Amino acid sequence: LDAKALGAAWEHQRNMTKPPGSLGILETIGAQLSGLARTFPPPIPEPAAVAVFAGDHGVHAQGVSPWPQEVTAQMVGNFLAGGAVVNAFAKQIGVEVCVVDVGVATELPDATGLLPRRIRPGTADMTQGPAMTREEAIAAIEVGIETARDLVTAGNRGLLTGDMGIANTTASAALISVFTGADVAEVTGRGTGIDDATHRRKIEVVKAALARHEPDPGDPIGVLAAIGGLEHAAIAGYIIGAAALRVPVVLDGVIAGAAALVAQAIAPEAVQACVAGHRSAEPGHAAALAKLSLRPLVELEMRLGEGTGAVLALPLVQSAVRVLHDVATFDSAGVSGKTD
Amino acid sequence: LDAKALGAAWEHQRNMTKPPGSLGILETIGAQLSGLARTFPPPIPEPAAVAVFAGDHGVHAQGVSPWPQEVTAQMVGNFLAGGAVVNAFAKQIGVEVCVVDVGVATELPDATGLLPRRIRPGTADMTQGPAMTREEAIAAIEVGIETARDLVTAGNRGLLTGDMGIANTTASAALISVFTGADVAEVTGRGTGIDDATHRRKIEVVKAALARHEPDPGDPIGVLAAIGGLEHAAIAGYIIGAAALRVPVVLDGVIAGAAALVAQAIAPEAVQACVAGHRSAEPGHAAALAKLSLRPLVELEMRLGEGTGAVLALPLVQSAVRVLHDVATFDSAGVSGKTD
Repeated sequence: LDAKALGAAWEHQRNMTKPPGSLGILETIGAQLSGLARTFPPPIPEPAAVAVFAGDHGVHAQGVSPWPQEVTAQMVGNFLAGGAVVNAFAKQIGVEVCVVDVGVATELPDATGLLPRRIRPGTADMTQGPAMTREEAIAAIEVGIETARDLVTAGNRGLLTGDMGIANTTASAALISVFTGADVAEVTGRGTGIDDATHRRKIEVVKAALARHEPDPGDPIGVLAAIGGLEHAAIAGYIIGAAALRVPVVLDGVIAGAAALVAQAIAPEAVQACVAGHRSAEPGHAAALAKLSLRPLVELEMRLGEGTGAVLALPLVQSAVRVLHDVATFDSAGVSGKTD
Repeated sequence: LDAKALGAAWEHQRNMTKPPGSLGILETIGAQLSGLARTFPPPIPEPAAVAVFAGDHGVHAQGVSPWPQEVTAQMVGNFLAGGAVVNAFAKQIGVEVCVVDVGVATELPDATGLLPRRIRPGTADMTQGPAMTREEAIAAIEVGIETARDLVTAGNRGLLTGDMGIANTTASAALISVFTGADVAEVTGRGTGIDDATHRRKIEVVKAALARHEPDPGDPIGVLAAIGGLEHAAIAGYIIGAAALRVPVVLDGVIAGAAALVAQAIAPEAVQACVAGHRSAEPGHAAALAKLSLRPLVELEMRLGEGTGAVLALPLVQSAVRVLHDVATFDSAGVSGKTD
């Protein structure tokens, strides 16, 4: 972050016609985005786009989810038809939805709004072997970097993460445990809403995968290859790509949090481009956000993914920047200051 | 709330293409607004307007704020010129700003966007006598009812509360203590950011006012007259007016919370039209929200007032309703359900 622009934001925020500090966390966001853009005031992050990275997970075979694997492909169809929650939120708030097939298990027909970037038809089962090769992990990261670049080239000034993949909270829990050091049981949640028996099995499956691979958090590509998802790799690349372009990224929930830990391990400064849109009800998300030192803007017990939490938070981020452009200072508005 | 429309919302939310319950608090809001509108799906609350009720407080003479009293009138000028934070937020999010002079101490010139509804030039000092007469309290409530009616007649489908008044957190603390039964010290905060000595004085001032008047929470008009603000009375009326029209009201911070307690004491069912936009950093706000049984949508340590927290929360409320209109069901989208 550029220190001069960051300082200019704090200074200006003190002179705006409001009590100092009274915008709370939004003042931190305004300063961060000034430092990121290296200019004051920074551009308002609009237009904005949410990239929904879709991928399947071989670990689904271990019975970690009550949803059939084909739901991933069916939900891609739902996104493209405009029928999912992320579409409704995006329509309400004014965000473009871009769907990226980075590894859905079943063939998808060509469709407007779908970027076909499939690295492989879903990962392999991480309890039986590596989820993917190192080369596939790198290729998926590149998909994310290119998606960020293309969306910014198209004029977007704010990027949002989204995801779809049945069983992806299982891979997220594994990633979060590796990068935060937290116990598997603490960071493995109920995802879409599983019963106690499935939850116990999910924890055992994650433990078995970690015992098999003993992933080294110092080798993030190796971690991704062993236990990650294709969408985790792509989102990590998307964050890194956005940070390199100095465009803010609003993160969605636990899948984005796990991917941001991968991005942090690859390029720590990439996190400076990130804003945590919300905190998911999934327990691993809090652990990920703590490790990323990010405070979520919205906490509504949501646990849906798709980018829904990121889209909801976008107006807060835009408003935090808008005030830096529009609000009068005490001098300019002729408003008296505090008497000390 | 209409039980049939409320039930229809819950039933539909279970069939939408998402895991049951995965929209968290937003599902509660969607159901509430269905019940309020007595129809499913309820109208999306847009367009929306924020009414900023401005009034002065005689208790300012007791040294409870470091800001001169004329800042209230100066900030009204700033609102009308579009230079305040609430204007920036409203522009970003698409909300009309309407300023209502319900009792500013100094004369204000006529201006577009300003509703001149002054009941009296600020309240009297509640430590020396009643803040206003019962008749003035009722007249200020009527200003709020009429403002709600006029904004809905003009086409608004969502109403937001806003406020401006130097020293109004002092009157809010007194109101909150009366209606919640909480200790004065627990619900009296630092408002715009006062030092320890002023904070101690503010607590003593509120205690002195309550000791003098011994307000009876069973007589809300009497409480308003003794220790309330003109903007508190107007906002209470605004909430009651909106509820009668079955239009949702998004509440801002601690001043709105105090006013909603007045509305609740007058007409308990009026709270069913309310959504808590945010939770302010002011400690009395949490006590007020608990008594109102409202859960805030946004918690960002803001403490500015003006309606800023309500405006920020509006896209969340709109999105909660938008999904009821737009999102496909498992059947309609051909998405497989959970296997049990």
